[in-house]
Formats: sequence, structure tokens, C-alpha cells
Amino acid sequence: MNDTAFPAEARALLGPRGFTQDAELMEPWLTDWRGRYSGKAIGLASPASTQEVAAFVKLCAAHGVPIVPQGGNSGMSGGATPDGQGRSVLLSLRRMNAIRSLDADGMQATCEAGVILQTLHEAADEAGLRFPLTLGGKGSATIGGLVSTNAGGTQVLRHGTMRAQVLGIEAVLADGEIFDALAPLKKDNRGFDLKQLLIGSEGTLGIVTAATLRLLPALGGRVVMWAGMNDVRDARRLLVRAQRQCAQVLEGFEVMPRHALEAVLAHSDGARAPLSQPHEWNALIEFAADAPGANQLMSMAEDLLSQALDAGEIADATIAASEGQADGFWALRDEIAPAERAIGPAMQHDISVPVDRMADFVAETLPLVEERFPGMRAVAFGHLGDGNVHYHVLAPKGAVRGEWEASEGKAVSRFVHDLVARWGGSISAEHGIGQMKVDELARLDDPARRSMMRAVKRALDPQGLLNPGKLLPDEQALAPEGANA
Amino acid sequence: MNDTAFPAEARALLGPRGFTQDAELMEPWLTDWRGRYSGKAIGLASPASTQEVAAFVKLCAAHGVPIVPQGGNSGMSGGATPDGQGRSVLLSLRRMNAIRSLDADGMQATCEAGVILQTLHEAADEAGLRFPLTLGGKGSATIGGLVSTNAGGTQVLRHGTMRAQVLGIEAVLADGEIFDALAPLKKDNRGFDLKQLLIGSEGTLGIVTAATLRLLPALGGRVVMWAGMNDVRDARRLLVRAQRQCAQVLEGFEVMPRHALEAVLAHSDGARAPLSQPHEWNALIEFAADAPGANQLMSMAEDLLSQALDAGEIADATIAASEGQADGFWALRDEIAPAERAIGPAMQHDISVPVDRMADFVAETLPLVEERFPGMRAVAFGHLGDGNVHYHVLAPKGAVRGEWEASEGKAVSRFVHDLVARWGGSISAEHGIGQMKVDELARLDDPARRSMMRAVKRALDPQGLLNPGKLLPDEQALAPEGANA
Repeated sequence: MNDTAFPAEARALLGPRGFTQDAELMEPWLTDWRGRYSGKAIGLASPASTQEVAAFVKLCAAHGVPIVPQGGNSGMSGGATPDGQGRSVLLSLRRMNAIRSLDADGMQATCEAGVILQTLHEAADEAGLRFPLTLGGKGSATIGGLVSTNAGGTQVLRHGTMRAQVLGIEAVLADGEIFDALAPLKKDNRGFDLKQLLIGSEGTLGIVTAATLRLLPALGGRVVMWAGMNDVRDARRLLVRAQRQCAQVLEGFEVMPRHALEAVLAHSDGARAPLSQPHEWNALIEFAADAPGANQLMSMAEDLLSQALDAGEIADATIAASEGQADGFWALRDEIAPAERAIGPAMQHDISVPVDRMADFVAETLPLVEERFPGMRAVAFGHLGDGNVHYHVLAPKGAVRGEWEASEGKAVSRFVHDLVARWGGSISAEHGIGQMKVDELARLDDPARRSMMRAVKRALDPQGLLNPGKLLPDEQALAPEGANA
Repeated sequence: MNDTAFPAEARALLGPRGFTQDAELMEPWLTDWRGRYSGKAIGLASPASTQEVAAFVKLCAAHGVPIVPQGGNSGMSGGATPDGQGRSVLLSLRRMNAIRSLDADGMQATCEAGVILQTLHEAADEAGLRFPLTLGGKGSATIGGLVSTNAGGTQVLRHGTMRAQVLGIEAVLADGEIFDALAPLKKDNRGFDLKQLLIGSEGTLGIVTAATLRLLPALGGRVVMWAGMNDVRDARRLLVRAQRQCAQVLEGFEVMPRHALEAVLAHSDGARAPLSQPHEWNALIEFAADAPGANQLMSMAEDLLSQALDAGEIADATIAASEGQADGFWALRDEIAPAERAIGPAMQHDISVPVDRMADFVAETLPLVEERFPGMRAVAFGHLGDGNVHYHVLAPKGAVRGEWEASEGKAVSRFVHDLVARWGGSISAEHGIGQMKVDELARLDDPARRSMMRAVKRALDPQGLLNPGKLLPDEQALAPEGANA
């Protein structure tokens, strides 16, 4: 490997807009958006086409230069931030930001990796359609990043994660070959579904350069409800009832405990509680329908809530009377994280267990955490319908931000992750592993699963150049085992 | 390897019910149900539990004995039939036929691999639920086989293939380790989705021993329609209209040409044409709804058809007035294959192209086939909504069954497959590759895709013992390349 030859060749290949070593230009992309991870890189490559990505990866393979792919740099786990060694090159997909096609009849769009989620939403909207996945970072998150991390959001209950939206994929593999499976074949049984392997692999098996995504008809209408109950298991009963009666229109089902709602009401000016009395638990439910079904939503909502009231599952409930009120209900949900941050430091855990066990998990484990760590408060809220909650543990009063997370916070996370593992769950429901959870995954992962993952990684990236140090321990650790194989 | 030691050890491990070399007991399972493929095997293993499968696979790995997994032996591509060498052992999953659990609230069931599809349908029905995948062989097809081949059927349009039904999976890997991902996590981003890799891999990467499957609320009602049109592209327009207006209830959309309908009417006693006049193309459409939406289906159906009539897309249409008539419409569709068989030999192709291109593909390529092979008739029918049709080419009059398929029929298939490849499609939409299409896949597959598949196969089954000769060329061919890696 010749350290001076590589940048020169990269610049010759990609041109001045396509490759830079300018520290000022690189700086914003070497730290993740939350400022938790920082790294160094040889340079920043910004190819303009799939062919340029392929040629650049070939160059990196020839020089043995590791590649860290990056989209909107809005991930939660440091998956797009290089390590501190400075041996890697940062590969930004942001210049590849064309919507190559949008077929309104076929209800699908082919987007390059750098297309921003919000841009796709707007394009779908103009065609009288919608893309059924959204999340907080939609103004910066890119399609390539969303595919590579199998992003979630609040519509997973009905529409699934990013995986369910991907009809076709194009990627550049570790040897620089282009894997072209963009054609959206609804049925294709020609062997292993390699597309599925690339989705959610965090850039460790290939670099997603484009995806064909499904679109849905624009919403005909929605009804948003708020219900209060004493026990999270009652929220689960309401969820089951809704899924049995209204599966076709159940767009969202979120829960939040009294403490989280009170934090939001204290933190946000003008926020109002939907119900007159406080309840230990609250459920936020959205029904949504395509145009012809919209007029039925209100009666379905009224039936659901009155039956749940009669059954004693909920203590009180209200239906948003206007779009403004509906937005207000959702704002309460979205304000929980900022409201808690205002209170003090917290360890946040993005976890899932089987959907049918989540209510029990929450009811049984929150007290265990508070008992084990006196002075802390454990709060769980979010996507009950997906078996996925944000499981936050708030520091004791007076804890120093920065210090507490690095010391006692680590023990808290290990305790929570152990509980999750015991309940057959996942320590990363939507945010991926990145570099943040590499150690915890190594500690808790099933050996058979892990050995399969490592075998697949070695098979598809034998040099270990794709996003090293993310998801799996890096190639350094793999090399001896690989050599014996 | 000691040929006499292996059977003795297998018998000691699995007991007399679990392992046999009795020719009479083995005979029904050594030929596929259509009688196209026959093979030989050392013995027939029928383990009773996942632990027995794991121990048996370890034994096979130690002795270097290849394993051919088999479920209901109802596949279409010879994927569960061993080759003629007699070196392999047949591994039947039929004894593992327990539904381990059925959670009506959670709407999911965990089935062992040997559970027959019909049995699952009945169990779901008893719980007031349904399993949204069915096919002709439901009385013999097993869950393990359906998962391993990613089976399709007539409900894929709305509910997806088997892949979309699988919430969790348990499999025994090539080294005998158990991969336990049965817990149905709706969100799980801990790296590669290995479950997806096993689904549809035809037993070449692991042996599926159980799966957790999603169930849906029982049907509240259905409406079945029949429409006639002059051009298959008009059928496509009707499909687009239905997907825009009624995506939530569109359960099936099948097309069939005049020739196929006439063959059915001539072949089946009592079959009646739904419309008074013949049309060049016919569409069979089903709307289905959960209970609360059922009363709306009829008006949605009337709206759809009257708008399509006004737009000149369809020439005539009728809505089934009773369940009996609805069944009758579907029977016409289901009788096409037997009716054509009565006419004479045919080459059948299970192909897909992108959904939005299928109508053009059919319109443009059927004449090309008939032009290239004078005297033959090309007929396409089936799942237009999935971009998947059965593309049959009927032999010229007087062709001799058996001879024609082996000679001219092969050239016909190559011609059809070339067309499919040119249109960006798949030569196996639902039936898999098995041994039937190994050569055609090798001829037409994309090199990058193929090299990924081979790398993954080598990584997860380095000895090449899992279902050799299926899907990919067998390990004999792989060995030199593997040795160089």
C-alpha cells in the first residue's frame, strides 16, 4: 500500500468535487450528529454515480483502504463515523440524490442512495401517493442509510420497517462489482434473497447505491384517539382488540406512562393533557384509511373505545375532534425525549421483545431496574404494537451529565440488556449496532447466529474493508480465524 | 467415511422409526409427486425433534454424507429428490408435525416443519383467524417446505409470499448447530437478517425445523368479479385502478386469455362462462375484508367496474351473486392447467417480470413465440397483480408426449427464458430452482449475483452437504474455486 498514491488516484478517478482531503470540508462528517463519536479519514469521496462508486471501491480494494459509507449522518449508533486511526476513507453517497423514476401507476419510485427522505415524501405527495415510513430525521436521513440500517419509525405497525418498502436494490460489493437487483420483482425464487442480506447490514457487506421503493395511495383520512388506563397490560388488551377488529386501518399504537406525559406537560409550553384525570398509562392510537374507507374510521374508533370501556380495559378515552387536536396528541408523544433530557441525564435503550410479551416485560422489569439502582427512574414508552419501546433509565438527582453515563450508566445498560436477552428480545430494535453496541452484541449474541454472521462477512468482504469495526469486531480480530478456514 | 458405520450409527441415534433402509418404505419419497425426478438414497431419516435433526446432521457431517431435506414432497422443481448416485440420505421432516403454540391474541402460530398447510388452516380457523397463504398442494405441502421454497399462491398480491408470513425461524445449520430465531421480533436490527437468507434457500444453507407464522383475522366477507377486455394492457389498467382505489381490500387479480377459458369450458362438465360474449382477455378479481369493512365491498366493486366500463378499459363485467358463483369463477381459473393437459403436451414456465411491465411483456412476446415455433400456441395466465404468469407453450397437434418435451420443448424454454431475462425478469417466480432449472439459472444468472450466492453457500456449508445439486452446481464443481479462495 502506498499512502500517497491512493489520494492522487482517487482524485484522478472522481475529480475535484468527488474527492477531497480538505480538513474543513471533511470536518462536519467526521462526527456523528449527536456528537458522540468522532473519527479521522484519509479523505472524503463523493462519487456522482454507481459506476464511480464501483470504480472507487475497486481502487480501495487494490490499496487495501477501508471504506466508511455515509448517507445523511443522522444515525443513532455511530455506524457512519470512522474510527480514530485515520486509515479509512469516508464515502459519502449524498451527491447521488436523483429520483431516477417515479411510476404513479405502478406505485413505486427508484431513488439513488443520497435522496433525502423528505424529498421522497414530497415527490410521492405530488403524485397523489405516500411513502409509508417517516422518522424524526427525515430532513437529513437518506434512502441509502435508511435501507442500510433497516430504519423503523411510527408506521411500522401497519406498514413494516424499511425492509418491507424495498422492492429492489442496487449495491456495490466489496470487490467493486455492481449487484443490480433494482427490478422490482414481486415474486422471484431464484435462490438466496441477497437483497435482504444487504438491507440492515450497515454497509458491512456492500454499499447501497439505489433502491426501488413501494408507494401507497395517499391517505383518505385518519382518526386519532387517546386512552388512559391503570396498567400497561390493559394497553396490550386494547391493542389486541384493535388488531382483531381494525387490523386494516390500525396505523399506530404508542404507549406512554404517567411520568413521561407529566414531563412533557411541564416542559412544553401550551401542551395540554388529552384527558381530565391522570392515568398510570396512556395509549395513542391512529386509524388511517385510503380514500374509500375513510368515512368508516370514526365509527370504528367509537366502537373500539366503547367496547374497551365496557370491558374495563380503559378508564377514559377521547377522539381528536380536529386535525389540529390530532397533531397535538402526536406532539405529546414526540416531546417525551426532549422533555426527559431537560430533567437530566438518562441511558436510553432501543429494545424489542416479542409483541405479545412487551406489556409483561414493561410491567415486570421497570420495578427491577429501580430496585437494583436506587434513586433512578425507569420509563418505557413507544411502539407497543411493534413490541418495541424506548426504555429510558433516568439518573438520580444531581448526577453529572457526561460522567454518569460513562460510569454508572454502563452498568445500567448491561442490566437492561441482560433482561432483554432473558426475555428473548433484541438489544437493537431500530437503531442498529454501529459502533455503539458492538461490545454488548458480542457479549449477548447467540453463538450460532454470530458464527453465521462472521462466515457471511468473511465470504462477502474477505479483506474486511467495508465499514470496519461496525456491527462485528473488525477484520483484525477475524484474520486468524479466516486464515484457518 | 465408513459406509457400513453410518447407517448403524444413524439407527442407534434415531431409533427404528427414525431411520430406515427398507426399500419399500423409502420408495414413495425417492420420486417427486409429478414423477419427473427419481433418485437413490442410503436411507430415510425421520427425526422426531429439532435436537434429533441437529444430532443427525452432526453425524452426517462427520461421515461426509450429503443430506436431502424433504417435506411433503410436493415441490415443482425436483428440489426434494436426491440424485441417482445413492450417496445421500433423505431427511424427512414429516414426523415433526406439532403446532407448538397458537396465540390467538397475538395472532401467530409456531409450527414444526412437518405441519401440513391444511392443518394450519384448520387450526387458525378454529381460533377465528386465518393463515393468508394457500395453494393447490395444501393437503401435502409442509410448513418447512413452504418456508424453504418461499411459496406463493393466489393471495400474494395482498399478503405477500411465505417470506412475508414468517415472523421467526428455527433451523439446523450444516455443522449441526441450531439457529434459533423463533422469537417473533417485529423489529430487530442486530445485523444481517439471517432468517431471510434461509427462507427460499431450498435447504442448501440449513434445514428449517420450525417457524413462527403470522395469522390474520378471519375474513368478514368477499366479493368476486369477472371482467372481459380486448387487450391484456386493459387488464393492467383495471389493476392500476383497483390498486389506487381499493388497495386495502384487493385480495386477488388473475388474468386468463380467451383460449384458456375456452379450453376450460370444453374440458369441464358444467363449467359456464361468466359473461355472455367471449373476450380476448378475462380478469378475475377478488375483494376481501375483515369483518367491519365487509359491507362496503360491494359498493367498492360496483364503483370500480362502472368506472372501468366508462373509461372503455373493460367490455363487460359481472359480480358473483353468491358464494357458489364466486367459487365457480375461481374454479374456471383453477381448471386451466388440467384443461390444457387434456389438449396435449406443453412447456410450462413459472416466470415474473416487474409488475408494471407484465401486460406489455405478455402482449409483445406471445406472438414472438408463436412466430419462432410455428404450430405452437403460447398462452399466459395467472397472477397479473404479482407480475407473475404461467407462461405455457402448447405443442403442435400430433406431438408425442414425453418425446416433444425432451427435444423441441427444451428449445422453447430457452427461448422463453431468454425473453424473460431481456425484460429484467425471473425464470422462477414461485417454484424455485431445485434441480429442474439449475442449468438455465447457470446460463442466465447475473455474474455478481451468482458469485455472491456461491460465496455464501461456501461460507455456510463448506463441505457442500446440504441438498447438493440443487439451486447451485454441486460442491464437486465448487471445490477447486473454494480451494483457491
